[in-house]
Amino acid sequence: MNETAPKIRLHVEAPLAEGAEIALDRGQSNYLVTVMRLAAGAEVAVFNGRDGEWRAALTDAHRKAATLTARERTRAQETLPDLHLLFAPIKKARTDFVVEKACELGCARVRPVLTRYTRSERLNLDRLRAHMIEAAEQCGGVSVPGLDPPQQLVAAMADWPRERMLIFCDEARTAPPMAEALTGVARGTPAALLIGPEGGFAPEEAERLRAHPAALPVSLGPRILRADTAAVAALALAQAALGDWAR
Amino acid sequence: MNETAPKIRLHVEAPLAEGAEIALDRGQSNYLVTVMRLAAGAEVAVFNGRDGEWRAALTDAHRKAATLTARERTRAQETLPDLHLLFAPIKKARTDFVVEKACELGCARVRPVLTRYTRSERLNLDRLRAHMIEAAEQCGGVSVPGLDPPQQLVAAMADWPRERMLIFCDEARTAPPMAEALTGVARGTPAALLIGPEGGFAPEEAERLRAHPAALPVSLGPRILRADTAAVAALALAQAALGDWAR
Repeated sequence: MNETAPKIRLHVEAPLAEGAEIALDRGQSNYLVTVMRLAAGAEVAVFNGRDGEWRAALTDAHRKAATLTARERTRAQETLPDLHLLFAPIKKARTDFVVEKACELGCARVRPVLTRYTRSERLNLDRLRAHMIEAAEQCGGVSVPGLDPPQQLVAAMADWPRERMLIFCDEARTAPPMAEALTGVARGTPAALLIGPEGGFAPEEAERLRAHPAALPVSLGPRILRADTAAVAALALAQAALGDWAR
Repeated sequence: MNETAPKIRLHVEAPLAEGAEIALDRGQSNYLVTVMRLAAGAEVAVFNGRDGEWRAALTDAHRKAATLTARERTRAQETLPDLHLLFAPIKKARTDFVVEKACELGCARVRPVLTRYTRSERLNLDRLRAHMIEAAEQCGGVSVPGLDPPQQLVAAMADWPRERMLIFCDEARTAPPMAEALTGVARGTPAALLIGPEGGFAPEEAERLRAHPAALPVSLGPRILRADTAAVAALALAQAALGDWAR
């Protein structure tokens, strides 16, 4: 990291270009002016997921409606690996954890799916999205993965694009280890990771998954992993084999 | 998993053999008899980290001092991969998370280390150890990783056994990706993962690490990871390359 980069990073919706003015919402204005006590002229880093990262100056330090002005692009926009994470929602704290880690490890889309054994807790997508933005702000990301509304797993499978590999963590002991299964798959191949709920897939779901033309059943070792652990482990192995954890 | 295996799993200290009586402590007795309402004759699974997993019957349903009798060994003892996790303690909830994931993903020893930038929060080793046992009980493990008292990183490095690879997550962009760095290393090679604190290693620590004869600097991709995320990602990649996530 650049030692002189501003420490405060904000995700904004506005387009970013030299001289662009960014009207902050009430929450961000309050954070900068009241909580962090920034005065006019102070600099922060901003990103919107499209235009890279910019150094921006606080040009109107209004407590409720502050304005930033973009000065200089400090980082190019990154393109996230074409990797989706499909996961069955779990308890609130562990779901928060999964989406936070998905931001840090990097994937293009987070897709909640409902399975037979999913305990249908309601998902607050706005809250999850805010949590993902916060993770990206804190971890230096210039992208925030997309977040889809929940979908039935059977619907996702019926509508699956042929070219996207559907990597699913199969609890049957016969699946090959994930790293071995991905040996020889070209880096950049579109892929999705599917993590089942606590309690696993229903037998008929596992059967349908194994028979799906895009499916690649894989194993994550001899121990039983919680769903959140499996999601993080699988994201790391996918980035190493297919994504951008390469030279 | 065996469908007929008892659902309740307990970690005990006592030796396990056919007919062995296991005197439960007050907490476990209360849990089985008062909370779970088990009566004499009910079966639970027990493990001690040495003798595999055993089916045991509740032979004295005393609320404060219950007794189990081991009946039959249901699983052999596993040997955990010879992998150590050295991590600089972080905030309590994230430290709990790291030790929980270390149990699930499997490593032989968890070793807290103190670095220049470690915020010296006090570690309650008894509490962490209880958390690890609970993770092993819930995740079907028959082993619990060892937990060492905290040690200064410089002391650990000075006393490092030559044959144990010291894999450290280097924030310098020049380190090779971890999966690539481990290509060709023999499965079963003794290894340790070192995860720095939030804020990274101090420059002189990073220099000393890079110069250490056992050190292997590696990268975990282009994004900045929190310490807990790095620990889980590195454990998964280490298991895939060196540990028991193989056929």
